Amino acid sequence: MKKEALAIVLEKFNEPLMVRAFPIPILKEGEILVKIEAAGVCGSDVHMWEGRDPRIRLPMIPGHEGAGEILEMRGEKKDDYGNPLKVGDKVLWNRGITCGQCYFCKVKREPSLCLNRWVYGIHTSCAEPPYLTGNYAEYLLLVGKTDLFKIRTGIDLSVLVPASCSGATAAHAFDLSEIESGDSVLIQGVGPLGIFSVAFAQSFGASQIIVIGGTKERLQMCESFGATHTLNRHQLSKEKRKEAVMEVTHGRGVDVSFEMAGEPDALKESISLVRTGGACISAGFGEPHGTIDLDCFHDIGRKNLRLQGVWVSETRHTHMALQLILSRIQDFKKLITHTFPLARANDAIRVMKAKEAVKAVLLPHG
Amino acid sequence: MKKEALAIVLEKFNEPLMVRAFPIPILKEGEILVKIEAAGVCGSDVHMWEGRDPRIRLPMIPGHEGAGEILEMRGEKKDDYGNPLKVGDKVLWNRGITCGQCYFCKVKREPSLCLNRWVYGIHTSCAEPPYLTGNYAEYLLLVGKTDLFKIRTGIDLSVLVPASCSGATAAHAFDLSEIESGDSVLIQGVGPLGIFSVAFAQSFGASQIIVIGGTKERLQMCESFGATHTLNRHQLSKEKRKEAVMEVTHGRGVDVSFEMAGEPDALKESISLVRTGGACISAGFGEPHGTIDLDCFHDIGRKNLRLQGVWVSETRHTHMALQLILSRIQDFKKLITHTFPLARANDAIRVMKAKEAVKAVLLPHG
Amino acid sequence: MKKEALAIVLEKFNEPLMVRAFPIPILKEGEILVKIEAAGVCGSDVHMWEGRDPRIRLPMIPGHEGAGEILEMRGEKKDDYGNPLKVGDKVLWNRGITCGQCYFCKVKREPSLCLNRWVYGIHTSCAEPPYLTGNYAEYLLLVGKTDLFKIRTGIDLSVLVPASCSGATAAHAFDLSEIESGDSVLIQGVGPLGIFSVAFAQSFGASQIIVIGGTKERLQMCESFGATHTLNRHQLSKEKRKEAVMEVTHGRGVDVSFEMAGEPDALKESISLVRTGGACISAGFGEPHGTIDLDCFHDIGRKNLRLQGVWVSETRHTHMALQLILSRIQDFKKLITHTFPLARANDAIRVMKAKEAVKAVLLPHG
Amino acid sequence: MKKEALAIVLEKFNEPLMVRAFPIPILKEGEILVKIEAAGVCGSDVHMWEGRDPRIRLPMIPGHEGAGEILEMRGEKKDDYGNPLKVGDKVLWNRGITCGQCYFCKVKREPSLCLNRWVYGIHTSCAEPPYLTGNYAEYLLLVGKTDLFKIRTGIDLSVLVPASCSGATAAHAFDLSEIESGDSVLIQGVGPLGIFSVAFAQSFGASQIIVIGGTKERLQMCESFGATHTLNRHQLSKEKRKEAVMEVTHGRGVDVSFEMAGEPDALKESISLVRTGGACISAGFGEPHGTIDLDCFHDIGRKNLRLQGVWVSETRHTHMALQLILSRIQDFKKLITHTFPLARANDAIRVMKAKEAVKAVLLPHG
Repeated sequence: MKKEALAIVLEKFNEPLMVRAFPIPILKEGEILVKIEAAGVCGSDVHMWEGRDPRIRLPMIPGHEGAGEILEMRGEKKDDYGNPLKVGDKVLWNRGITCGQCYFCKVKREPSLCLNRWVYGIHTSCAEPPYLTGNYAEYLLLVGKTDLFKIRTGIDLSVLVPASCSGATAAHAFDLSEIESGDSVLIQGVGPLGIFSVAFAQSFGASQIIVIGGTKERLQMCESFGATHTLNRHQLSKEKRKEAVMEVTHGRGVDVSFEMAGEPDALKESISLVRTGGACISAGFGEPHGTIDLDCFHDIGRKNLRLQGVWVSETRHTHMALQLILSRIQDFKKLITHTFPLARANDAIRVMKAKEAVKAVLLPHG
Repeated sequence: MKKEALAIVLEKFNEPLMVRAFPIPILKEGEILVKIEAAGVCGSDVHMWEGRDPRIRLPMIPGHEGAGEILEMRGEKKDDYGNPLKVGDKVLWNRGITCGQCYFCKVKREPSLCLNRWVYGIHTSCAEPPYLTGNYAEYLLLVGKTDLFKIRTGIDLSVLVPASCSGATAAHAFDLSEIESGDSVLIQGVGPLGIFSVAFAQSFGASQIIVIGGTKERLQMCESFGATHTLNRHQLSKEKRKEAVMEVTHGRGVDVSFEMAGEPDALKESISLVRTGGACISAGFGEPHGTIDLDCFHDIGRKNLRLQGVWVSETRHTHMALQLILSRIQDFKKLITHTFPLARANDAIRVMKAKEAVKAVLLPHG
Repeated sequence: MKKEALAIVLEKFNEPLMVRAFPIPILKEGEILVKIEAAGVCGSDVHMWEGRDPRIRLPMIPGHEGAGEILEMRGEKKDDYGNPLKVGDKVLWNRGITCGQCYFCKVKREPSLCLNRWVYGIHTSCAEPPYLTGNYAEYLLLVGKTDLFKIRTGIDLSVLVPASCSGATAAHAFDLSEIESGDSVLIQGVGPLGIFSVAFAQSFGASQIIVIGGTKERLQMCESFGATHTLNRHQLSKEKRKEAVMEVTHGRGVDVSFEMAGEPDALKESISLVRTGGACISAGFGEPHGTIDLDCFHDIGRKNLRLQGVWVSETRHTHMALQLILSRIQDFKKLITHTFPLARANDAIRVMKAKEAVKAVLLPHG
Repeated sequence: MKKEALAIVLEKFNEPLMVRAFPIPILKEGEILVKIEAAGVCGSDVHMWEGRDPRIRLPMIPGHEGAGEILEMRGEKKDDYGNPLKVGDKVLWNRGITCGQCYFCKVKREPSLCLNRWVYGIHTSCAEPPYLTGNYAEYLLLVGKTDLFKIRTGIDLSVLVPASCSGATAAHAFDLSEIESGDSVLIQGVGPLGIFSVAFAQSFGASQIIVIGGTKERLQMCESFGATHTLNRHQLSKEKRKEAVMEVTHGRGVDVSFEMAGEPDALKESISLVRTGGACISAGFGEPHGTIDLDCFHDIGRKNLRLQGVWVSETRHTHMALQLILSRIQDFKKLITHTFPLARANDAIRVMKAKEAVKAVLLPHG
């Protein structure tokens, strides 16, 4: 086996990512070394590169979405489905590591809110061992607490990596949504979060799936995932969009809306298009970005509104997203619009930043 | 039997309520005539008298909370528990009448949101038959769709009437709250809604019940209902209140907060004192009264907040409130601080408006 | 308009159904006369014909599943979605009428368990007015409390009628199931209940849908609805079926099983194939038919089993089934294997009894 | 500090427990050594002593319920509420250790069903280091994964120990019960499980709490915990008990029943006394003990029954039970009818076996 591994390093914000070599660490009991076959490039990676994410300590290897092959493991281990794992197995892992011993992990069973949660490629620096702690790399060291899912051979791992971040976050949103079979749904936003939401809406039995977005191609992609109505916000005014939603929902508004755009205006609109007694789920705000004002009576009390914020996700949601992709893998292939070798990580960041790509994936081994 | 009944009539906003006589109507199939033994005076009755409630059509007989004795009935009828009803039975009824055939009543099972809902003493005018449609009267005509609960003899009906409005609304708030046994709870407001919330918090197994209010006597009453900590907002600054809540909750904030004050500042504070992943239930806004601004990231997304508005209530909640009162009737006697004969309805309105009374009740038959 | 309507009458158990003419009733306020375009023939109709259903009073017009056109109406009325109804509209209705005033209707919000529930074509005799109370007829009189759903023009109503009984009952089963996205599911039985369950399982996001049945053609139909694995009980022993289920579920058993066969052995097997902590939903028993024995420790306590019986359904479930059919109407066309004119009702009963038909539908107007 | 600790050892089934000395182990990172102040004697300890529990490997130190003082700790650690822990703190711990990485722990969030769960004083032998793995001892070694709750000083720890087993199991039962405020409840059994259930029923807002038991004194204790009706099965026949329950529940049966007796007859009766659409929760079967037969139609389908088995518990439930005890500690003192020094462990087993004690507690340090 090789002694060193190449990885992409963020050394200075807003400057090109660099290729660096790191020693491959010696495993401790319970650890696994994986060969990264696909590393997803997330919109939040762009924010980290721009220095907008306070969780980052430089230098660091970005990349919190990954899937690959087990190269080495120390001790016996099963995946979360109960499959015994061995060298050569293909695996996807949950990006976050949680303590398992806090109020959120054990009393409230919401590990996504664990106070000690950390994420590969976000909270980890590569300044000291074990160095290989982000997915933009040839290899990644998985600590013993990592939750893994064995993937059967023959599956294109690049299609699966979005399950570990945007897919899992959308799953968390639906898990909290209390959506019911036959409900009408509105989705704001047509990035990966929005597209996963369309697919989840269908798999939760939504009768109407209305999407508001600003890009014709992506709205079309939403239709291929099950959207029943798409509204282009560059072509329809806010009033026209409201008319369209009310027409589909017998004048009531939708049963559940999903804000997946991260814009205060979208959240306001999302609330305004929900029926009395309905729910507005907001999962688009991954970083500070504006405020909304709500009328205490009309927007909340009289409306009997449920407004639910969503913060990141947990292993349960990665499972949900993974199963969703596996159930319609041909559709999800369309989500991966760009792939790059490791050395072109800067191009991957660029196409994500410019919104040329729906989803870019790095293929460290080609 | 008498041919006429006395009733209190609101003829002009902000002018004294008048005593008027009305013919007692002839019952149609399914209808019941009750002799009102106790009619609750609700804070919203004050608002109606002031002309602030758009649902009112003058002239009208106020009063949506009542309990009494069956004087006459046409046809067979059972109460919602299955007890056959007969003349002479004591009964409490649900204040709202719902259609049973709309999206809210049948598909979503939320009759409190029924589009055709109407309430005795709120949506009803006394300008035409059957006249006797509000509880501030000697008699009330109950239509066939009214949900009733038979009360065993020997119970003081004046203690029960709050079950039909503030008690039921608090019940709705808890029904939507997803509170769990052992949770810490904050309650904002010390009117009937707030006091019912303290009692419900205890009966839902809350481990900490913190109340914020502005009146020493009412905070003491809250303690007698189970509050573990009371914070007087006239004595403790917002910062001090936050410190006190954080100390009790290991620095996290409460699991669930209940805004029962109807003030935007209280709602903002209520949200700020909820833990990550917790819920803020807002039931205090019965009429338009201000706005709040929320930071999309800090208050909603990162916080994984659930904000739940609560609008009125349904029969299920009247049942919950009724059972709560029956389980600790001595405590609830304290809630009824003032009683008046029918002719002194103006005094009852006055003590409620001045907040001299926690709860005033009219006793039309002394 | 015609003065008389033809209807099929069950006069004596196990003897041919007869065609009889009845006077068309004069409508009371709130009533609707519909022209039946499609009347579903349910498996339980066969049981009624055989005299096995104690709810029946002879003579009666069978048929509890129907859809048609509004011919006449007295008063204004909206459907449960809020659509105003008018003569000429196509409608589907909920088969059961509930009181709206009992513990089940109002306190527990489970009208399917209403003590006063009655069903067109089951609890109704045609011995006295209004006579036209079953769906095996040219016309049906709908009482004011009937819940309706307006159907847009151009939809084949015969495909929709199963929504009102087997579809709604399957919806009830899923509504009670607490199934989660990504769950593995087992379905026992390949009649309409079983096939609806396959479709619902997919629309609730099941990752594995395993069906056990005894007819090759129906198992294939299940596959076209989304079954991922089908097990023919005539070809695979109980042990082999268990092996197959365990292999798919990592040795745990399924997360949720649905007993839709009405056989004690199927229910026992259904429980045995559920994982620890999983749920077995039993909706197949529409009439008395045997017992099962359960080991208190192994089958219930140690297994942390949830066993949920399902009795009939309510309007909410008819809505769910209707939306499910509308979302994949081409697939559901396959369910209707036989159609007959009214006069051949005896043939319809025969093909259902012989299990030649998956679903037979009467077309009273051709 | 001492080099050795005394502990009670089960060396041979059905023979006297022996006092033995063990070396005090050297702590590894994350481990804690506690001085046991109170060790609960559970009914299942009697079964272990009798050799009826297949999980046991001899020799072993019994005792899965404990609370005490931190004597030594290696590394920093917080309790599950977020309190930093230090030497001298009083603590209660969750009896089970779960893997945190299996389908039950992470995907289904039900660690009580974790395939790798083990319990102090049940699955542990004292044949090899670290020896001190049961609570019938002066000291106990807590592994790093143990969930702890810091107890404020001044609380009698012997009153708290039942929280970690019978209290937590009753909490699990209520957590799964979906009981609603105002519900009527039946509890079968008057051991610690039954008494905790009475207390939980009250703290979940039950309106009627009916208890069936066989001991007058314990039924009286149930009344002091909130039982509204007690039925002595030695004085009332099954028919009379049914009459009594039906009278209280308007002829319907209770909304939720809790089988806490571990007897097949009790479970059958429990199901028979639940209303249509109600739930029967069975938590009494900790070991194999008989079967019940159910009529598929009458007991399950037509009844729309929910039968829920309950297996052990998790940290969340220990929290619930702990908070319950803390909220009414004077009442719970009555539960502890017997205390013994460590050397009299055999007497403790004897009084539990003879049902002389409701709950016996060992006090290893007097």
